[in-house]
Amino acid sequence: MPTIVVDVMPKAELLDPQGKAVSGAFARLGVESFSQVRIGKRFELTVDGDVTDDVLAEARRLAEDVLSNSVIEDVVGVEVAP
Amino acid sequence: MPTIVVDVMPKAELLDPQGKAVSGAFARLGVESFSQVRIGKRFELTVDGDVTDDVLAEARRLAEDVLSNSVIEDVVGVEVAP
Repeated sequence: MPTIVVDVMPKAELLDPQGKAVSGAFARLGVESFSQVRIGKRFELTVDGDVTDDVLAEARRLAEDVLSNSVIEDVVGVEVAP
Repeated sequence: MPTIVVDVMPKAELLDPQGKAVSGAFARLGVESFSQVRIGKRFELTVDGDVTDDVLAEARRLAEDVLSNSVIEDVVGVEVAP
């Protein structure tokens, strides 16, 4: 069955304590390739039937209204999984 | 600066209580298009410099060893963000 993937990330201007913690762990492990780590959420919505424009529009609406908190998060992607 | 995106999802055979909760919320809201919701993590690693094969290999290694718990999670993607 087709899957719609919704990606939600903390807003760029906000601190991301989880990401900072991982960044600190990388430094302690001697990993120097990455200057920043940010951690968000990935939702996989299994679609019951075909992915019509209506279903995709509903997923976009739910991504904004239910799956993310617009005060602190941005929806960075709503896409049908390949 | 280039970004490597690492996607981590709970293993298919495991319950995903967060996902189930969202699924229940969808049902209460009258949303019937989606039969299942699963929630994972999306890591954005900002690369300090160019994305070489070595950097990508290091990201893959960290995704398996640090960013995910292989007992309960699968790394479903390690890709350079477009």
